[in-house]
Amino acid sequence: MEVRPEPRAVAGFRFAGVAAGLKTDPSRKDLGLIVADSPAAAAAIFTTNQVKAAPVVVAEQRLRAGRVRAVSANSGCANCFTGKAGMKLAQLSCAAVAAEIGCAEDLVLPASTGVIGHLYNLDKYRAGVSRACAALTADGLGDFAMAIMTTDTTPKMASTTLRLGGATVTVAGAAKGAGMIAPNMATMLAFIVTDAALPAAALRGALRHAAPLSFNAITVDGDMSTNDTLMLLASGAADNRKPSEREMAAFQEAVAGVAHSLARQLVYDGEGATKFVNIEVRGARSTSAAARVARQIANSPLVKTAFFGNDPNVGRIMAAAGACGVRFDPDRVELWIDKTRIAARGMILTEALPAAAQAMRQREFSVRLDLKQAAARFTIMTCDLSFDYVKINAEYTT
Amino acid sequence: MEVRPEPRAVAGFRFAGVAAGLKTDPSRKDLGLIVADSPAAAAAIFTTNQVKAAPVVVAEQRLRAGRVRAVSANSGCANCFTGKAGMKLAQLSCAAVAAEIGCAEDLVLPASTGVIGHLYNLDKYRAGVSRACAALTADGLGDFAMAIMTTDTTPKMASTTLRLGGATVTVAGAAKGAGMIAPNMATMLAFIVTDAALPAAALRGALRHAAPLSFNAITVDGDMSTNDTLMLLASGAADNRKPSEREMAAFQEAVAGVAHSLARQLVYDGEGATKFVNIEVRGARSTSAAARVARQIANSPLVKTAFFGNDPNVGRIMAAAGACGVRFDPDRVELWIDKTRIAARGMILTEALPAAAQAMRQREFSVRLDLKQAAARFTIMTCDLSFDYVKINAEYTT
Repeated sequence: MEVRPEPRAVAGFRFAGVAAGLKTDPSRKDLGLIVADSPAAAAAIFTTNQVKAAPVVVAEQRLRAGRVRAVSANSGCANCFTGKAGMKLAQLSCAAVAAEIGCAEDLVLPASTGVIGHLYNLDKYRAGVSRACAALTADGLGDFAMAIMTTDTTPKMASTTLRLGGATVTVAGAAKGAGMIAPNMATMLAFIVTDAALPAAALRGALRHAAPLSFNAITVDGDMSTNDTLMLLASGAADNRKPSEREMAAFQEAVAGVAHSLARQLVYDGEGATKFVNIEVRGARSTSAAARVARQIANSPLVKTAFFGNDPNVGRIMAAAGACGVRFDPDRVELWIDKTRIAARGMILTEALPAAAQAMRQREFSVRLDLKQAAARFTIMTCDLSFDYVKINAEYTT
Repeated sequence: MEVRPEPRAVAGFRFAGVAAGLKTDPSRKDLGLIVADSPAAAAAIFTTNQVKAAPVVVAEQRLRAGRVRAVSANSGCANCFTGKAGMKLAQLSCAAVAAEIGCAEDLVLPASTGVIGHLYNLDKYRAGVSRACAALTADGLGDFAMAIMTTDTTPKMASTTLRLGGATVTVAGAAKGAGMIAPNMATMLAFIVTDAALPAAALRGALRHAAPLSFNAITVDGDMSTNDTLMLLASGAADNRKPSEREMAAFQEAVAGVAHSLARQLVYDGEGATKFVNIEVRGARSTSAAARVARQIANSPLVKTAFFGNDPNVGRIMAAAGACGVRFDPDRVELWIDKTRIAARGMILTEALPAAAQAMRQREFSVRLDLKQAAARFTIMTCDLSFDYVKINAEYTT
């Protein structure tokens, strides 16, 4: 299975992205539609933040039925922390789409991303929906991906194909922004579609498999957004038979692969990021312990500024690892930057530091901490903390 | 009780701070001594990091006896992640002090702060100890405070007096750096001394009272150091009678007051800090819930960059508050910057934002989040995340 960072047509779906004037710059696309030819099976994972955006509340409730005709996603405004007016706005927005395509209102799911605490203009939204519906096309996933961008500098797309129940099915997705990465812009949004014929329960299983290895395995600044949404829709247009258990596992891998590619693209485009870093913790007693240590390292501002400075700073990495409550013996661990071991037997291997510093000058490198306790491992994808991160986030104003 | 940010003589103790050549700049003080005329009662709180510096391991073990003749603290080198050689170095360093002042080795406690993963030069340390012992003076707390500075731009001292068991006793302390603030420089060190006659158990009680309200109520970057040490020594030279329960409470307040002043000075001097911010969460169901919410807000890079940019960013603050797992109703909370209410009824009070932005231009201001659930509250002291934080930490090299 090869996952490519590009869009693909997926039978049973059409897509569009238009400039509705919801963003400050009226020339930028800000309203994206995914429309299924007939109700698609659907599953989703939403933010666990106590402060949930109105579209998340609406989508979460409607999703329980497991069937969706359309997703209407806007950028430029998160419609979060907007009280009853925000709920009303999300519902009326979906109603506009339902009226255009001729379906029940509760078969349309809303999603929003952008500044928190503001409402968008409903008239502009409605006019945008009309134009988006007129522009719907099987090849429109790229336009959709553009329409959900906020501080993103590139659209994020990924796709793959596989054999399933006697048919070739496609899995393709688009994502933006970034969850815990940029909640100022309030949201990681990711939408994955497939033409596979699968029930909602199977889609939920695929998301539960994919999320921990992709969108929950990235961090830029450790924050959690109010609008985070990961959605998987299946049109059934591939008309496959019921897949075997093995084929179902392959489908889960395909969804995870697309999700991983999208998540990776998010970190590459993290705010102010100049480095992409894999933080791999291995030799742990459990996957969750490995993940905790990796996350603590990945979220440490001191470690992240050291990445920015090409500094193989063993002390900061070890201090972060030791601070998360997971027990280990610092005299036994080994620490590597790519292929260079920089700490062992409780000491820094000073002579190895120049090679490690050299490796850190690459756009992408790995930090590997081996706890030497057991066989569990986890990898977190993260980026550095640069002057531009501060610049982007200090100069952005409400 | 008035706590002043300045040193005071404390009967029964002498202090010194000298330049031993452990720092790169040989003109800077880097070795500090506190010597009690006779064994002082002592208690301490140490880092809970899995990666503990050698001096922490040695001091923690020796402290169990509850009696201390001297504390020998150096800057310029954390003696952490240094294996068996580091343990030996910490022990030999204490032995040098014991030989000079004529006491048992295990009555001397070591403390170190500076770069992780390196050893300091023992000969230089020993020569420094000789000179420090010759320089010991009752008025030397200021010299001691200078000797433990690393990236600190100012020495931190505080003191107060109170009546206790028929005598006037003094509580005075010095601190440096900053615990969770700058573990790259590996350490918050804080030493508080008093001439009160009190057993070690009473001192432990005072520290347990003081720590949550002072050093555990601050954060600059959310990291936890490998060398964090908070120590309280009592010489007994005030010769007071056994204090009443009420007097003992006053003593605890005095220690907490000195600790709070020192902690506050640490945050004011946080790396790259341009703003001092009190994050007060009130109306919570428990103190620990209030503390969790306050800490999550205080540690959010997005909130901290907004502080730097004078941006009353309700969305970032609410998103951080909602991310820590504490349940609350976002439609009921109220959010204030100093005296300006900027959010209520689940919405931003847009017209109030200019006044809030104006308040944020001050060197110090408060963020107050009222969860409207019950009466528990907690305040975290923190600072902003500026270009200089990135500069200081990206350009520092191992």
